[in-house]
Amino acid sequence: MKITKDLYQGSLALLTDFYQITMAYAYWKSGKANEVATFNLFFRKNPFQSGFTIAAGLDYVIDFCRNFHFDPSDLKYLGEMKNKDGALTFEPAFIHYLEKMEFSCDVEAVEEGTVIFPHMPIVKVTGPLVQCQLLETPLLNIINFQTLIATKAARICVAAKGDPVLEFGLRRAQGIDGALAASRASYIGGCTSTSNVMAGKLFGIPVSGTHAHSWIMSFDSEIEAFKAYAVAFPEKCVFLVDTYDTINGVKNAIEVGLWMREQGHELFGIRIDSGDLAYYSTIARKMLDEAGFLDVKIVASNDLDEHIITSLKIQEAAINVWGVGTKLVTAYDQPALGAVYKLAAIKNDYGVWEPKVKVSQQSIKINIPGRQEVVRFLKDGKAIADMICLEGALDDSKEFLIIDPNDSTKRKKIKTTNLEVVPLLKTIFKAGKKVYRRPSIDAIRINAQANLQQFDKAHKRLVNPHIYPVGLEEKLFEMRTSLVLKMKNYEGE
Amino acid sequence: MKITKDLYQGSLALLTDFYQITMAYAYWKSGKANEVATFNLFFRKNPFQSGFTIAAGLDYVIDFCRNFHFDPSDLKYLGEMKNKDGALTFEPAFIHYLEKMEFSCDVEAVEEGTVIFPHMPIVKVTGPLVQCQLLETPLLNIINFQTLIATKAARICVAAKGDPVLEFGLRRAQGIDGALAASRASYIGGCTSTSNVMAGKLFGIPVSGTHAHSWIMSFDSEIEAFKAYAVAFPEKCVFLVDTYDTINGVKNAIEVGLWMREQGHELFGIRIDSGDLAYYSTIARKMLDEAGFLDVKIVASNDLDEHIITSLKIQEAAINVWGVGTKLVTAYDQPALGAVYKLAAIKNDYGVWEPKVKVSQQSIKINIPGRQEVVRFLKDGKAIADMICLEGALDDSKEFLIIDPNDSTKRKKIKTTNLEVVPLLKTIFKAGKKVYRRPSIDAIRINAQANLQQFDKAHKRLVNPHIYPVGLEEKLFEMRTSLVLKMKNYEGE
Repeated sequence: MKITKDLYQGSLALLTDFYQITMAYAYWKSGKANEVATFNLFFRKNPFQSGFTIAAGLDYVIDFCRNFHFDPSDLKYLGEMKNKDGALTFEPAFIHYLEKMEFSCDVEAVEEGTVIFPHMPIVKVTGPLVQCQLLETPLLNIINFQTLIATKAARICVAAKGDPVLEFGLRRAQGIDGALAASRASYIGGCTSTSNVMAGKLFGIPVSGTHAHSWIMSFDSEIEAFKAYAVAFPEKCVFLVDTYDTINGVKNAIEVGLWMREQGHELFGIRIDSGDLAYYSTIARKMLDEAGFLDVKIVASNDLDEHIITSLKIQEAAINVWGVGTKLVTAYDQPALGAVYKLAAIKNDYGVWEPKVKVSQQSIKINIPGRQEVVRFLKDGKAIADMICLEGALDDSKEFLIIDPNDSTKRKKIKTTNLEVVPLLKTIFKAGKKVYRRPSIDAIRINAQANLQQFDKAHKRLVNPHIYPVGLEEKLFEMRTSLVLKMKNYEGE
Repeated sequence: MKITKDLYQGSLALLTDFYQITMAYAYWKSGKANEVATFNLFFRKNPFQSGFTIAAGLDYVIDFCRNFHFDPSDLKYLGEMKNKDGALTFEPAFIHYLEKMEFSCDVEAVEEGTVIFPHMPIVKVTGPLVQCQLLETPLLNIINFQTLIATKAARICVAAKGDPVLEFGLRRAQGIDGALAASRASYIGGCTSTSNVMAGKLFGIPVSGTHAHSWIMSFDSEIEAFKAYAVAFPEKCVFLVDTYDTINGVKNAIEVGLWMREQGHELFGIRIDSGDLAYYSTIARKMLDEAGFLDVKIVASNDLDEHIITSLKIQEAAINVWGVGTKLVTAYDQPALGAVYKLAAIKNDYGVWEPKVKVSQQSIKINIPGRQEVVRFLKDGKAIADMICLEGALDDSKEFLIIDPNDSTKRKKIKTTNLEVVPLLKTIFKAGKKVYRRPSIDAIRINAQANLQQFDKAHKRLVNPHIYPVGLEEKLFEMRTSLVLKMKNYEGE
């Protein structure tokens, strides 16, 4: 999928915060534009009080980077920008510098569908300071949202316990791409299909949908409406039964189902979109069974999320298929993932990487400095811990101590004998050239399922999950601590 | 602004729910495709427990309708779609029918920036059933989101009491257009600028932004970083002071401010992005004033919304400019407006409009049938009530009884003598031709301010607002009641 080619015209280079452009200008003015830096994209808390998060959005990031350039219209816009006094904001030579800019960064990233956790770098960008900076905002925009929605979808699928989950949030999504990207991420997270036809076309996701209340209302009677629909779609025909009265709607669906059977067709399902879903689904199931429609599916919708689905499951509602919209595609209970993108290291004049840290009054806002790797330790196919370490640390040792970045008393010893050690960061771009082969969306979806399988169900519990251990390797932990203490002292605390 | 031309390639006709396509097919199969219908787009509750809502999104809707057609690639996608048994889902003659389809609807709508309320039609579409249906999902997607964000922005501006509010939500917005559309709607709702450079270019919105923590971290010292930034931007220079230690950051900003003054420049402001904003802004103000920087602005940011701004105002925090991101662009406390699009009337074989109603177990889900108008009554420039009535009702009378659609005991008599009667729906398209002249985004923003001025401040209160009266004209109320009773009876309750 080439989102920027298929959907968007030209470059998206201006899809960034203005301060990235002003900083680019100031880096350029002060001769620092080509200093080489590493930035890490990471988040500090799983969303939804979840025990896990599912990575998504990398495919958009790849498109963004491959297509990165300033169009003539972008350059014109920036080149004509003026201060209050009428002077040009940016010198023409800087505009020319942007015109010549070619994407030349190294990008490493966790693959889409991977289970991820707080603090670990999800995307790691190394390159000229100016380019790293210009990428900050679009990368955050893309990864924050798709990761959020893939995680929400995975949670909803956990609640549905293997039942199909249909995503149909387009009408309530946040903008055009808010819908498209949500459909994509929902599919990665485990949904079966989307209602969004454009998402189907662009991403190759299965689409599904039948009819609305307006279909029924446009006929003189519900029976007439059902029959006309069945004529058009004798296969996979699903009747919406609650336009006027749900029980009567089920009666009419059965009547038309019998009429279809006379013609050699089988009714596929009914949908209930309002009222008490536990109550009506149970009655509808009984009515359908008694009429000989044991295989007819009951689809339910109406502001569902993982918690309502869990409640309906506990009540033994007779629902086979779940239609989920608003609560999924807007991640209603937490509509933003707070991932950030922080400078981790700069190469000094002698070619040595200097780790960088941002100190903060809020301890959780202190980043992890230095050039990092992330590995997952698996025992008999089950994930037991993740480690964030400095590059090269893996070569040095077969035994590690990992320490929780927020609580130095939480420690875990790992001996790698008999463990599978899986590096999570893959090389995506090398000096601006793509070296990664993109998997299909179905492969990504399968990867997410396989990843989730590696984790104990206690980590996947929807409420109060067991916390999976992710720690800093001892040397990284110590380097961070001493750097923070030095910065605090240096700046006069 | 031509969003579909400037940003998106080709048609967005597939940006719709699959069930709109299946219904289109079934309408076409059953010979109903060209029946003429009217659909209304409306919402049932103000978002955020607000006393008002601000309409936004019409400009995108206009682009969508003008550009409405099925591209060859859309037709190929639909034409090749297959059922499980391998048969084509849609007959080739239907694909040909879509290929020839030209937008031919009448569209009436409330102008952007208008203060609106539950139940009133915001967009009213009249035309062939099939076209009305295909428009449902994209119109909801566009209007729901932009209206939500314009309203959130207006609330935040109410809290800021005239201080500038800068929107910088791009990194946390829901997708690419989730950010762009949010920047647009935020500006309409009253924000001063956006950080999103692409929104600046596409919509002509002012952009703003200075530098990030990474700018500071890339230098050996904070003072050096401030100086380098001041060299690049001697005008409108704002220093972020909390990279290491806020108090020390203010000291350094003052030192560099004095250095700038020696060279004939004045520091514009400082920004605080973490920690206790009330506490640090007050100390910073004192330090700046004592150093002779009485005009230096203090910009605050960090998860702000209307409630935190109100609290900081009550605490007399020394903040002059508010930077708002995540909570604004995702409408964090209510990330979706639940507007719906319902069939209101169908023209029968004799050319007479038949009102249509969807009955529901949930009373609030019963729509208002028939072809409607909406008027606002103003007395001395102040809005006193809105009335939803059947077309033509205004010609018949100078005195009206309006009834709350959800509580028939809430009634209000309106005599139009000495009142200004303002129809809210404007004609946008007539038989598919645009007849409306689009205002500039600045004119829309001014319209929103002027509209808000018409309402008593009790309606604009952020918590527990006084409810503004919006009622159904008596005849419409009675028609709706008798139609609902008839439908309930007819369907066997």
